[in-house]
Amino acid sequence: MTQSGPDKNAMWSGRFSESNTELVARLSESVSFDKRLYRQDIAGSQAHARMLAKVGVLAQADADKIVAGLDEIRAEIESGKFEWKTELEDVHMNIESRLTERIGDAGKRLHTGRSRNDQVATDIRLYVRDVIDNVVMLIDRLAAGLLDLAEREADSVMPGFTHLQIAQPVTFGHHMLAWREQIVRDRTRLVDCRKRLNLLPLGSAALAGTVYPLDRHYAAELLGFDGVTENSLDAVSDRDFAIEFCAAASLIMVHLSRWSEELILWSTPMFGFVNLPDRFCTGSSIMPQKKNPDVPELVRGKTGRVIGDLNALLVLMKGQPLAYNRDNQEDKEPLFDACDTLSICLEVYGEMAPHIRVNREACRAAAAKGFSTATDLADYLVGKGLPFRDAHHVVGATVGFAAKKGCDICELSLEELQTFSALIQKDVFDHITLDASVAARKTYGGTAPEQVRAAIARARAKL
Amino acid sequence: MTQSGPDKNAMWSGRFSESNTELVARLSESVSFDKRLYRQDIAGSQAHARMLAKVGVLAQADADKIVAGLDEIRAEIESGKFEWKTELEDVHMNIESRLTERIGDAGKRLHTGRSRNDQVATDIRLYVRDVIDNVVMLIDRLAAGLLDLAEREADSVMPGFTHLQIAQPVTFGHHMLAWREQIVRDRTRLVDCRKRLNLLPLGSAALAGTVYPLDRHYAAELLGFDGVTENSLDAVSDRDFAIEFCAAASLIMVHLSRWSEELILWSTPMFGFVNLPDRFCTGSSIMPQKKNPDVPELVRGKTGRVIGDLNALLVLMKGQPLAYNRDNQEDKEPLFDACDTLSICLEVYGEMAPHIRVNREACRAAAAKGFSTATDLADYLVGKGLPFRDAHHVVGATVGFAAKKGCDICELSLEELQTFSALIQKDVFDHITLDASVAARKTYGGTAPEQVRAAIARARAKL
Amino acid sequence: MTQSGPDKNAMWSGRFSESNTELVARLSESVSFDKRLYRQDIAGSQAHARMLAKVGVLAQADADKIVAGLDEIRAEIESGKFEWKTELEDVHMNIESRLTERIGDAGKRLHTGRSRNDQVATDIRLYVRDVIDNVVMLIDRLAAGLLDLAEREADSVMPGFTHLQIAQPVTFGHHMLAWREQIVRDRTRLVDCRKRLNLLPLGSAALAGTVYPLDRHYAAELLGFDGVTENSLDAVSDRDFAIEFCAAASLIMVHLSRWSEELILWSTPMFGFVNLPDRFCTGSSIMPQKKNPDVPELVRGKTGRVIGDLNALLVLMKGQPLAYNRDNQEDKEPLFDACDTLSICLEVYGEMAPHIRVNREACRAAAAKGFSTATDLADYLVGKGLPFRDAHHVVGATVGFAAKKGCDICELSLEELQTFSALIQKDVFDHITLDASVAARKTYGGTAPEQVRAAIARARAKL
Amino acid sequence: MTQSGPDKNAMWSGRFSESNTELVARLSESVSFDKRLYRQDIAGSQAHARMLAKVGVLAQADADKIVAGLDEIRAEIESGKFEWKTELEDVHMNIESRLTERIGDAGKRLHTGRSRNDQVATDIRLYVRDVIDNVVMLIDRLAAGLLDLAEREADSVMPGFTHLQIAQPVTFGHHMLAWREQIVRDRTRLVDCRKRLNLLPLGSAALAGTVYPLDRHYAAELLGFDGVTENSLDAVSDRDFAIEFCAAASLIMVHLSRWSEELILWSTPMFGFVNLPDRFCTGSSIMPQKKNPDVPELVRGKTGRVIGDLNALLVLMKGQPLAYNRDNQEDKEPLFDACDTLSICLEVYGEMAPHIRVNREACRAAAAKGFSTATDLADYLVGKGLPFRDAHHVVGATVGFAAKKGCDICELSLEELQTFSALIQKDVFDHITLDASVAARKTYGGTAPEQVRAAIARARAKL
Repeated sequence: MTQSGPDKNAMWSGRFSESNTELVARLSESVSFDKRLYRQDIAGSQAHARMLAKVGVLAQADADKIVAGLDEIRAEIESGKFEWKTELEDVHMNIESRLTERIGDAGKRLHTGRSRNDQVATDIRLYVRDVIDNVVMLIDRLAAGLLDLAEREADSVMPGFTHLQIAQPVTFGHHMLAWREQIVRDRTRLVDCRKRLNLLPLGSAALAGTVYPLDRHYAAELLGFDGVTENSLDAVSDRDFAIEFCAAASLIMVHLSRWSEELILWSTPMFGFVNLPDRFCTGSSIMPQKKNPDVPELVRGKTGRVIGDLNALLVLMKGQPLAYNRDNQEDKEPLFDACDTLSICLEVYGEMAPHIRVNREACRAAAAKGFSTATDLADYLVGKGLPFRDAHHVVGATVGFAAKKGCDICELSLEELQTFSALIQKDVFDHITLDASVAARKTYGGTAPEQVRAAIARARAKL
Repeated sequence: MTQSGPDKNAMWSGRFSESNTELVARLSESVSFDKRLYRQDIAGSQAHARMLAKVGVLAQADADKIVAGLDEIRAEIESGKFEWKTELEDVHMNIESRLTERIGDAGKRLHTGRSRNDQVATDIRLYVRDVIDNVVMLIDRLAAGLLDLAEREADSVMPGFTHLQIAQPVTFGHHMLAWREQIVRDRTRLVDCRKRLNLLPLGSAALAGTVYPLDRHYAAELLGFDGVTENSLDAVSDRDFAIEFCAAASLIMVHLSRWSEELILWSTPMFGFVNLPDRFCTGSSIMPQKKNPDVPELVRGKTGRVIGDLNALLVLMKGQPLAYNRDNQEDKEPLFDACDTLSICLEVYGEMAPHIRVNREACRAAAAKGFSTATDLADYLVGKGLPFRDAHHVVGATVGFAAKKGCDICELSLEELQTFSALIQKDVFDHITLDASVAARKTYGGTAPEQVRAAIARARAKL
Repeated sequence: MTQSGPDKNAMWSGRFSESNTELVARLSESVSFDKRLYRQDIAGSQAHARMLAKVGVLAQADADKIVAGLDEIRAEIESGKFEWKTELEDVHMNIESRLTERIGDAGKRLHTGRSRNDQVATDIRLYVRDVIDNVVMLIDRLAAGLLDLAEREADSVMPGFTHLQIAQPVTFGHHMLAWREQIVRDRTRLVDCRKRLNLLPLGSAALAGTVYPLDRHYAAELLGFDGVTENSLDAVSDRDFAIEFCAAASLIMVHLSRWSEELILWSTPMFGFVNLPDRFCTGSSIMPQKKNPDVPELVRGKTGRVIGDLNALLVLMKGQPLAYNRDNQEDKEPLFDACDTLSICLEVYGEMAPHIRVNREACRAAAAKGFSTATDLADYLVGKGLPFRDAHHVVGATVGFAAKKGCDICELSLEELQTFSALIQKDVFDHITLDASVAARKTYGGTAPEQVRAAIARARAKL
Repeated sequence: MTQSGPDKNAMWSGRFSESNTELVARLSESVSFDKRLYRQDIAGSQAHARMLAKVGVLAQADADKIVAGLDEIRAEIESGKFEWKTELEDVHMNIESRLTERIGDAGKRLHTGRSRNDQVATDIRLYVRDVIDNVVMLIDRLAAGLLDLAEREADSVMPGFTHLQIAQPVTFGHHMLAWREQIVRDRTRLVDCRKRLNLLPLGSAALAGTVYPLDRHYAAELLGFDGVTENSLDAVSDRDFAIEFCAAASLIMVHLSRWSEELILWSTPMFGFVNLPDRFCTGSSIMPQKKNPDVPELVRGKTGRVIGDLNALLVLMKGQPLAYNRDNQEDKEPLFDACDTLSICLEVYGEMAPHIRVNREACRAAAAKGFSTATDLADYLVGKGLPFRDAHHVVGATVGFAAKKGCDICELSLEELQTFSALIQKDVFDHITLDASVAARKTYGGTAPEQVRAAIARARAKL
């Protein structure tokens, strides 16, 4: 912030006798964060100029100068030569002012038939569209990595937990497919969000439309929009797409927080189910033996911030009357923060997930604890004709007996088992081992290796 | 809560030596709020029984008894004769226990091949699906009401505001169409949410699938689902659809809060733009002259609670490891609260919106204040060849002069106007009246009555 | 909701020609949830009547009738005989209407010099004050239970975790004192909140004060307030105390969620550090071997709902102009939900905490894994003169060697240790056992049993 | 981010064979935002060194070198000469590494007896303490400005609103005092928060305390802390103070959002109650007549972001087990954002508030509309012996009559008034004018100019 002297260049200074103080400028300026919209702003202005020329509001020569001038400005920005000026407030004025500097009066004609209100609405939509396209790509990469990992571990038995108690054996591959399901759903949410946002607001002007005979559909086509917004008042004040994006991002982060929780648990020596590659971990400044799962911890921690961003936007919009209010300048930082946070978290998980090394023996050993095949015994009894609720009571007693004896139920003798139900026969031992248990769960979507492989095949077929 | 004595009926009591205290029962029970799922629970159980019979796991006679028994239980519930028991914890156990009471052992066989985990997941999906169908209907009704109102007021001029300053004249009909756009978008979000949730989780059992040869697709068909969930671990722990619904509901509430803000503003004597029907207002216990816009105020106030519900669910799921954890019992009350709040707010707006009476004179008089056609003067000058930014400065000076003189710019004489620019000619007065201003904004989506009518026609054509 | 026919009794019907529909009544009524304020409402009315009599606005006989009549109404309510009427909207009108029914015109005089705005503000303050007093008691009980548990386990060694990796040995008692610190801080936050809310708003009337010569300080004294609010506009619209309470409650719930997370971890067979009493757990409908830590899970899940309540109130108040708006009716349900949720969670933890059984052997065995005394080796080397950062590198190499060999560092021979640093001597074994490590951390607030006992003594001395 | 090559300097690299990738470094680094803690970090390190020397763990000469070296580093930083290195991850390592570069081995000894866990906990507490001290000063300045404004407008009559309907006349000064009450309460919340955070965590080391004979109370004294934290596990993981600060900041922002809403309303031509100084407003790029209340709009918009920050921290801490987890690195950006946002908003309101110009005539004219003295007529009738509820009905009818006639009730003739109640006499006109109404509300805290002046005097006396 190096503003000094009166704001001679402020675009609206005609009416005012006082100058903004530096404090207000610091509160008001947005160029420090909205300059990241420069590519979208330039693309939008170029399309606007071309459209104005097409409908005869702008001379073709002026339009050509504008398009070329903006190309040069983009190059200036990308080479780091562009001088951003806080006293010009925002990305739009910085670029337009530089354009006029370069090409003269034609630059002043660019803003014909538009307002900063529809201009910024266009920029942000283009920006979020770009972000979604990138995030979808990151999801696809991550989902592919999980698919490979699932295939590699399709037969690896581990304990399945409910209430963090050992419940039934599952396969590690099945667990990875559960993760994958979550982001595959997330992907469809983003695609739906993109569909809704991909309409051009430009041409709504300040709030009421404009007197110029704009061809909004032509501008939409130039910018790759599927159509144009229907109502000018709505279009300049609508930030639904930003909220919808942040809601989708929050849910993705919640999913990543759940995976992170599991990786952190599985990395503790108490579980020891997985090894994360060293490059995703750090050590301790005081405890040299530590290998901390920093990446999952940071990702879990970043969940809060995206949920915070979502809240910021919901609170921002609550109770705002139509049409544009300056409050809406505050939409950008939370939105950008959600975009950045989501992207880096997905990217780093995309890097890390395929390299998770599974300690198959530790997983299997844990599954062998905790009577994880008790349900199989109950199902066995149901198969022999016992109503389920009764079988449940029989197994409860059997487990109690085994627990006191300090062994698993499959380590009890047939005689011992039969004291709990005469229905138990020798074939019981074909049902209550880990592998038998897992293999038997072959309902569609179940954990049997056969089902896991079928699910992988279905997923691959859809790509 | 009238529990006393040991929980003899608790379904899992086989293993435990101690009884739950009343306090824990009060913390744990969910029947007081999940009993509202009874219809979904019964439908799900009936489909499960039919499917079990189809695949031969259950005798057809048992399945028939179950279906008939559940029909009777639904009738008992709806006639108020069913006795809900807190010691049976939840809706599922209450109904199953009563079923066994009525039909004997067949009732005990119903739970074969399923778990409360996939059962409740099925119930909630069915419930949210029903709520979405109802909400979509309420939106359609409200949108239709706004369309009628927009048509009635297609020519009514009012001030368009930005920053709550008078910006440009718009038509009341155009403003109503802006509102309508918001809920039309909201509707598509709900439809997308429904599409994603409409998959059957039943058959996932506790977490791993089941050993029974279930035909999940058949059960899905019976219940009107589009398909089945892909992964059992994911299916029992997934509450994405509840979060997505609450996010969509939050956005709808934000929209309603914005309309409410405007109705409250327009109802204050300082604006006086509209009259709300008496039945949506109340008076004051101390100030007999008051007519308070209670409905908009209550709706605006209820926005916070739905956003709160969304947060409750996001926080609930953050960091939860797979698969089902008891935390998830806490998904219901926030979800139900969001469902109820959203529904009543949409319903009451659907009742109220078409009956908003517009004070056309007050609206027009307000638009005549505040130099709302200043932009038209600028556009006029641009039409005469002045670059936009220069025209803006000319108009700024003109407005300053008129403000000091205490009149509108269209009340200045031609001579006075010409002191600011020699380009101004007599035809200027064809551009700077309210009606001329409005009529000129005929870009697609603009505020011109002609455009408003075209928008209404497009909307009607889509129905 | 059983309203039928026109609202003949609605207090403000004088001006209106239309009757509220049932829908609006359902939206507007609050008696279904604000009736829980009956005790506070009656106490407030009695104090108001006494004060009116004292200053001569009400005849003493009328005041006496009012006080007696309200006593009777409270008894009616508490015996379940009072008939709450939805068409009378709220707790205030229900009680006042019944009072007039019972004692005639004196009842109509009660509302002199007050409004529902200051009346409800008074009621809620009294209510939150009562809740805080109860919550503080629950905290004290829970803190005392933790102190006892800490004392019992002052010498029990367990692994201390950072990043959920085993870091250094700590004592279980020390860990319990960490929990206790959190709620002791929470208690001070509630006490500060109580101090700020304990001012009487009554006498602010609708918004501007009143023409009657009220003695507000006298009424404050009767109701146990520390003083009166300073500004009538602020007093009727202030809900800061509700937000502050919910913020304090959210933080307490976050603390309980952290304890819950640890109890859930410690209860999984992978850790096995503690046993929760059976009465705080449940079993599974499908897996008879399960013992699920339901109480910690439910409490962890309820965290979201209190954070949601806090958000509901913040969003509710955002952007509200002075003074009272009907939005504020929406303050009650989130506030009551936060009060109820917080209270039951603290109560159940108060019941459960002292009964947590520690598996001391499992804890010690876990601490012996993971090189938890590596820091002690580093400190030993620093004691021998090595700069800390260098010692850290030495220990890192030693740990790497031991890990490869599959033993703890204290199981290496002196010769092996000396290959990493010549500074290591025989006395190293006095520093790198679990008990030596713990005993050495005797800085104020450290984990040494001696420090834990000192901390307990300090805590007891403060009571 | 310019990291390249292996992290040779990473403090924990002893154990690892792989190097962090640039991506992970970008995810993990915190120096880009935590470098703002440099003053607190240096002060903390200097105190730690002095304390180590005092207890004999560090040679006095080393301590002196450290203190002097850190002074020089602070100077380097403040003169912009310090080179921050991302590969050194955070502010702590950057400064320590530079220290060792400058002073050699003494620098390596600084970290004796502490860990980054207690170091950063100390830094943040010091930082928030500094922020609170500054915010309290900003509040005092703003409160003083409001007091002056209230005094200047102690007699200015304006409409008091409830439900945004005109309710009763109030004075502008009274309204300003209502605002002031809010931030005076806020101030006490910050003071309470400061009290709770002002305890030294240093000496807790990584989690368990340390083996060195630290004098924590001496270090606390050197740093201006009131005492030391009680429990090492709690101290390194406690972020309560950050959450409490953000909760207090959220409430302040909610208050500012309410003022902003009112200023925006009062600035619209529909109200026209105030003029904001030009330097706090901007114009429009398209509508030259606009004077937009940008500062209030931006402040209202920023409310969401601070509430978002609060949520980010609550979600961050939810469910975290003890002790330090890397998630906690994510505490800083939301906290810093809340600090910055709150500070600039309070500062700009402190600048703006005293310069609000009140349009007294417009305020008075508005108050004369809307039957704002109807309550006074009711009170008059009560004074004549009518029960309040009956008086309310009489006034309702009178207002209805006046509304139809198109005049205020004080413009009705005595005869007209008497048709509604025979109790009305000529003296009624002494009660139902604006000034009479305002002057009569002289209960403590009421709106009468006499009361406003008394409140100002009380406020001044407290300073």
